[in-house]
Parts: sequence; structure tokens; C-alpha cells
Amino acid sequence: MAACVAVGFKPYSALRILSFYSSLPRARPLCFQPLFRRISPSSPARTCFCSLVSGGEKTKPEIAENWRSESVGDFRKKLRIADIKGGPDEGLERLGQTLVVKGWVRTVRVQSSVTFIDVNDGSCLSNMQCVMGSDADGYDQVESGSVTTGASIWVQGIVVKSQGSKQKVELKVNKIVVVGKSDPSFPIQKKRVSKEFLRTKAHLRPRTNTFGAVARVRNALAYATHKFFQENGFVWISSPIITASDCEGAGEQFCVTTLMQSSGEVDSLVDCIPKTKDGLIDWSQDFFGKPAFLTVSGQLNAETYATALSDVYTFGPTFRAENSNTSRHLAEFWMIEPELAFADLNDDMACATAYLQYVVKYVLENCKEDMDFFNTWIEKGIIDRLSDVAQKEFVQLTYTNAIELLLKSKKKFEFPVKWGCDLQSEHERYITEEAFNGCPVIIRDYPKEIKAFYMRQNDDGKTVAAMDVLVPRVTSSLLISIFIIFNSEFSAVHMFIH
Amino acid sequence: MAACVAVGFKPYSALRILSFYSSLPRARPLCFQPLFRRISPSSPARTCFCSLVSGGEKTKPEIAENWRSESVGDFRKKLRIADIKGGPDEGLERLGQTLVVKGWVRTVRVQSSVTFIDVNDGSCLSNMQCVMGSDADGYDQVESGSVTTGASIWVQGIVVKSQGSKQKVELKVNKIVVVGKSDPSFPIQKKRVSKEFLRTKAHLRPRTNTFGAVARVRNALAYATHKFFQENGFVWISSPIITASDCEGAGEQFCVTTLMQSSGEVDSLVDCIPKTKDGLIDWSQDFFGKPAFLTVSGQLNAETYATALSDVYTFGPTFRAENSNTSRHLAEFWMIEPELAFADLNDDMACATAYLQYVVKYVLENCKEDMDFFNTWIEKGIIDRLSDVAQKEFVQLTYTNAIELLLKSKKKFEFPVKWGCDLQSEHERYITEEAFNGCPVIIRDYPKEIKAFYMRQNDDGKTVAAMDVLVPRVTSSLLISIFIIFNSEFSAVHMFIH
Repeated sequence: MAACVAVGFKPYSALRILSFYSSLPRARPLCFQPLFRRISPSSPARTCFCSLVSGGEKTKPEIAENWRSESVGDFRKKLRIADIKGGPDEGLERLGQTLVVKGWVRTVRVQSSVTFIDVNDGSCLSNMQCVMGSDADGYDQVESGSVTTGASIWVQGIVVKSQGSKQKVELKVNKIVVVGKSDPSFPIQKKRVSKEFLRTKAHLRPRTNTFGAVARVRNALAYATHKFFQENGFVWISSPIITASDCEGAGEQFCVTTLMQSSGEVDSLVDCIPKTKDGLIDWSQDFFGKPAFLTVSGQLNAETYATALSDVYTFGPTFRAENSNTSRHLAEFWMIEPELAFADLNDDMACATAYLQYVVKYVLENCKEDMDFFNTWIEKGIIDRLSDVAQKEFVQLTYTNAIELLLKSKKKFEFPVKWGCDLQSEHERYITEEAFNGCPVIIRDYPKEIKAFYMRQNDDGKTVAAMDVLVPRVTSSLLISIFIIFNSEFSAVHMFIH
Repeated sequence: MAACVAVGFKPYSALRILSFYSSLPRARPLCFQPLFRRISPSSPARTCFCSLVSGGEKTKPEIAENWRSESVGDFRKKLRIADIKGGPDEGLERLGQTLVVKGWVRTVRVQSSVTFIDVNDGSCLSNMQCVMGSDADGYDQVESGSVTTGASIWVQGIVVKSQGSKQKVELKVNKIVVVGKSDPSFPIQKKRVSKEFLRTKAHLRPRTNTFGAVARVRNALAYATHKFFQENGFVWISSPIITASDCEGAGEQFCVTTLMQSSGEVDSLVDCIPKTKDGLIDWSQDFFGKPAFLTVSGQLNAETYATALSDVYTFGPTFRAENSNTSRHLAEFWMIEPELAFADLNDDMACATAYLQYVVKYVLENCKEDMDFFNTWIEKGIIDRLSDVAQKEFVQLTYTNAIELLLKSKKKFEFPVKWGCDLQSEHERYITEEAFNGCPVIIRDYPKEIKAFYMRQNDDGKTVAAMDVLVPRVTSSLLISIFIIFNSEFSAVHMFIH
């Protein structure tokens, strides 16, 4: 349990918090005023940034008043395109306002009298359409070809009603500044490109609609996860990533070592790896003095905290070295592991259900535009199915009853049904989609043989208090990567001894 | 950039979300009512848990009404000791209420007529004092010696005014159930024990006051971090942990490999490590087909997202393999890396200041009891100093001016002061504690030679747009581990090209 992790403090931080024990006499205030100057903005675009000099509500430092000019500016949330177009009336309430938009050019259409520039700042899927006449300040940059797809620009304009049908408002440009030019070879143009191609442009793919939407939805899911558990009194535990323990008992861990080097020719000789006189790897010379691995589960650590703080959860990266390139395998993924004290399987199911409904509802409410995009372009019907998850009551049945249900269905399954077998996708689909008409179903009380050793055994001696939540038809290959954080282990319920 | 991380889905999850493409005809509702039974509580203590059968506000599944008994119970937040004693009047507003408390026994004092049991549930530092007469249900468990320090108990009682001076209310016990007994050798007794001793009892140390308080404060800091950035429109990015890139250019990374095994005698022979004909490690046979490492920074990934989504942050584990056992070195730590687009150093300083003040204020408001504990037992004055951070205006000065200030101080420093030198702790202390009377100070515009290669060069050609925040006298060795998440790299500001 973290025994192999050195405890201390890292000097790489830019932000240092001093530790100081002795008590130095306080000097009188110093007044070297000439030493301190307000750095004047060197960039012409400086006015577009968001800090401003403090209004002075805060406590002044106990130093001479004329130091004031050196205070740090207040931090203000930027006005983003999402704030403008996501308003109650899709921006109409801002008609006539002069605003600044900063972002990246998606498309430019130069027409005889006006130029249309679609700008995206990543705050939402949709762009701000900027309409520009030849009289606008900075129009020469359009003429010289600096305003191209991928360029980063600063645009000031007035919010006007849009003539187009795609948006209610647009920006009539007063002034444009090209902050950074884009090369004509910029690979993310308006045409659709494959995800395989984007993989070769990993540094630019966040600028596509799909990857932007995935990032925003992932962010919403992660934050909703923290919100749910925090609002319900859970304490977040950062269980160690580097560990000497193996929670699953399987041999699928990554080794973490400093014995193997890849930097130099000599270093990466196998013969340079220290060995004992028996020819074994000499772990005593490794960083931690013994073998260390990447965690496969924070459960063991979370349990020690749950038996002290009652309800806790982990939410961090987890690793499996299983070499299987299927859509259901990841070497690295973020996992949520809640641990409830003084709880049984009913509480566990209630918690899992409430959590799922909370995060799904949060995403549907906060990422509407992104979910509409997925619904149209990636997986039709996803919004309806997620709405079902958010609103329908979950159904529970025991594994034993599920097997009986499958046997009575008289349906021909590829994998034969028998008490003790693992449920296959075809079985789970039948249960959720046919027997329960698209309702999420929790299967509980599995045979002990097909679940992990640490599950609590039920009184029947044959089953354990474990459960799986089956949610029908929610994901496609893309959404899998979004919903990866659903990948939680809610099933381990423990009646703590002390 | 994550190129080495397999994308897919992990089957280890208990919670599976089915993917399904074909359209099966929907069967009529099935009604195997005998199959489904409400599992009756097998444990006598079942009533103490927190789920209850749904009141039925949710949409019913489209199946026969008599399936209703199998719905999943609602999830309710537990009533915790923090909720009782942290109320507006420290619990007095609940006088006369019958409540249930579940937790672990801290101390038991058996007196002639009454028994005092102090119970802690980890929701807060302070215990609930439970007063029990011999007429209480379950008193035999006290007599038989089952209620000892470390035992987990379920207690039902009435909130009454406390006679003691340490709390306003206590619980007059009606009924007690020992959920789990404790061994007489339970090592966390009332006496103080050293942190070195607790290190050997890692599974039980979360039950001490100190480790419980640290866990709660860490949790508050982490959640406040997410809240601050989310409320300011930042998107959280989970940058890859396993990576082939090295952001810092130094050789301090951990190698992640499956080529080295520690499980069996044969596997851990150095000769079993695959090598090329030149005797080099054959990385093509490793998990990712090439060398892979633990991340030292998510900055490179965060930048690709910041140039698409505007403002982003990472908050995840980071690793350094520098073998130095000082209080400022960690092999594994959680780091925050915000990246702001369309921002300069002034925005950066404003963001860092606002962030620090936000999280410090959050902890002072939400972890009052824990901070009082630290203030009394760990580091006197910490609350005053943190209040200064939360309320005082931060001061900024350039590195060049800081050097001039130090030179003019005529103070004798151990490390001589000269333009171009790294600022040492003694210099930073002088600046924050003497020159600026305990005010947090931001030093900016460092010589390019002492900062990382990727910092933006200023127009003077000699300095770079980097900054360090110096906060005076905030930490001690214990608090360092709490405040480790302050360990942020706010200093990298980039004017993005496209």
C-alpha cells in the first residue's frame, strides 16, 4: 500500500510554498518604487486578454500605498462563443453589443462585397459567423491571404441578427487581428477525414468537430462524477499508481523500472541490466529496491479509507497489460471505484443507479449541442436511449432468475445457457432489449466461480453479492471512448469487520 | 502523443454498456413474476443502511405493473456525524430527534451507571459521544467486551444536550449493534503514535486524527481545483500517463515494460529479456513495440487541446524517477497544468492568483475543524497565514528587480546574489517575509538560462515570460503532502501560432 512510493516534495513546480520555522524580525516596509514598473503591453492585441487591474476590494498588503500599481490583475472568465450563442435566446439578447471573439478560423468565404469567416473557440461545437466588409480595420489581412483555415484570430464586432438559417446572430466585424497564421497545407479542412488519418495528426485533431465534442463530453462526465460523489458525502482518494500489490491476482501488470534504459547504445544493452549471481534480475538495484508495477485497481487502498471515512471513491488512471487489440481492451483507462461502508448490495445498486442517472442527465443538459452532433452523425437515437437511462427505473434480477428467463425464452443463442455460465452479449441484449423493453437491468448474485475471489459470499453458499448494470444499446465505437469512465467497479460490496 | 496507447474498451468493468447495431423486434412484455422476488434482508442490521424503495416518481419501465417490486431502491445521502455536529447550532437544532450513527469506536469508558462510547465515522474530526445506560438494547455486547476501540458499531439514540464542555449534543443510546469486532491488539489506541509507526500500519492509519484530516483536506483541495477551473470555462484533459514523449528533456523517467517479470524464477532471469543480435534490448517485443515511459508532464498534450478548446487543464498523476530522498522530491504526485489560449503572462499571473485564493478559501471554509486541528497540533499560525493568502493582494515584481531588491538589502545571504542566479529559499523568504511583510509575491521574467527551453522569450532577449508564486511560511513537512496539489506549473505561457 504505497509503501514503495517515496514521500516528499517535488522541486519542479513553478509554484513554491515556503516552509519556514524560525521567526525573523519583520523589516519596515521598503519603498523602491523605481524598481517596479507596470509592464506595458507589447502586443497590439493585448487588449483582448482577460485580466484587468484589481478594483481593490481585497485587503491591501501592509506596504506603502504607492506599490499598488504592481498588484496582480483580477482573473475574469473569458466571454466565449458558448456564452454568446448558448444564451437564453441564442444570442438575440445581445443584439447591438460590441464583443470580442478569439478563436481559430474554420472557413473563409470571400464574396464581392462581404467576407464570411467562421470562427470556433472550442467552447462549443458551433462557430461564430463573422461578416466583414472591406471597410473593417484589418481587412488588408484578408486581402493578403492571412485569414485562412486554421489561423488564430481576434475579432471585434457588433452582434447583429443573422440572415442565415443556421444561427440567430452573427458578428459584424469592426476589426480583425491575425494572432497566428496558418500554413496552406493545414490538414483539417472542411471536408470529412477519417479517424485513421487524424491519428497521424494527433496535435491538430482536437480542432475537429468530433474530437472537440468528445473532449467536452468527457470533461462533463468527469466533473459530474466528482459532483455526484462530493454532493453525497464521499471523499476522493488518490490511490497510488505505482504499487507493489496486485489486486486482481492476475499477471497482467506493467512493470515500472529504471533498470532498463533506451537512451544510449550502451545503456540499452541487456547485459547492462543488473543481475544476481543466479542470473536473476537484481531488483535491489531498481528505483524502489524491489519490483514495482502500475496499479490495476485502487480498491485495496480505497477499502482502508472506507473503513475510516465511511464512503470514499477513487477516480484515476488504471492499467492492464493484456495484449488484446479489441474494442473492449485498453492499456490505460480512468476508473471510478466507490467504496461504501455500512452498505449492502441494495445500497450498492442504488448508488450505481443514482450515479449513472446523474451523469447521463448532466451530459444531456450541459452538452446538448455535442450530443445532437453525435445523434446526427455518429449514432442515431443515442439521445433517446440515454434519456431512457436518465428517466426509467432500473430493474434488478438475480443471476439465477436471469438464467431461468433466458431458458424459458426458447430463443436460440449462439452460446448455450446454463447456470454457472458467463452471460454473453447476446444474453444481455435479450434481457435488456426484449424481456425488459429497453430498460436498464441490474443482474445480481452471480455464481461465486465466475466472480473475483474477494466478493462477499451469500448465505446460499453458491452465489456472491456482486452485480452488473446492463444498459441497452448505448454505445458505438466512438462513444465507447467517451463513456470509458463509466467503466466502474461498483460490484465489490464489503461488510467491513472493523 | 498517446500514439502508443491502445484505444478500446476494458472488459474488467462490472458495469457494461452494450453496443448493438441491428434492430431486433421488440417482444411483448414478459410476466414471469415468480422469478423475481424481493430479497429479504438477511442481516439484522439491514435497517441501518441507506437505500429505500423508490417512491415511484420516475418513469416506469414499459412492462407489466407487477414487476414493480423489483425496482432498485433510491440512493440517499447518509446522515453523517458532520451533518449532525456541523449544523448551524452544532446539533442543538436536532434535540429530541432519534438518529442512527454508524462508525468506529474511538474510546469506551464504562462507569458505574453509564457507559460513554466515542464514535467516529470519518465525516469529520470530532466524534459523536454516545451515552448508554444498562437498559439499552444490546447492552450485553458492552458487558461481554465486544465494544472496544476499533470495533464498528451501529447506534440508535436520541439527540440530547451534552453535559460535557467539548460538545453541545450527545446521543442517548436506545440500541447498539456491533457490526464488526476489534481485536484487543488494535494498534490505534488513544495514545499518540509516531508517523513512522503508522507507516507500518498503513491499512489502519486513515483512522487516526491526522490522516483523516489530511484525507479530507486533500479531497477538498482536489474538488475545489475542479470547481475553480470548471466555473471559469476550462476543459479537463486526461493526458496520457504512458507515453513515448519526454516533455522535460531530462533522463528522469520511469520505463513501463512487460519485458521484465518478477513472478517466476525462470521469467525473472536477465537472459530471458529479448535482445537484438547486437545485445540491445529488443523493444519491438515489448507491449507497445517500442520504449514507453511514465509521463513527466501532460503539457504537450494540454497544448494541443488549448489550441482547439481555448482554456484547458490537466489534473492527474505525474512521475519523476529522480532518486533523491528529500522532502521536496516525490516519485509520484498529482499535478495541475492549466493552459490558457490567447493569454499573456499577466493573464497567467491573474489565473494563478485567483486559483490559489479560491482553493485556500474553500479549504478554510469547508475544513474548519481539520484546519483548527492542524493549527493546534501540527503548525501553529497556519490558519492566519492561509487567511493572508486568501485575502491579501498578491504583489508582482520582475526577477531583475528582485535581484536589485536583494542587493540593496545589505543582508548577508549564504548564497551570494547575482543576476542570473537561481533564487534560493533564503532569498525568497527575505522577499516575501521582510520586504513584503508576509504578502504572497510573484516573481516574473526570469533569465532564460535558468528556465525551461519552451518558455517564451521576452523582447529584451535575455529573459523569458515565466513566473513563480512565492507564498510565505505556509507549509510544514506534514502540510507539504496535503498541499502537494498546489504543485502546479502555471508558468508556461504560449502565444499560440495556430
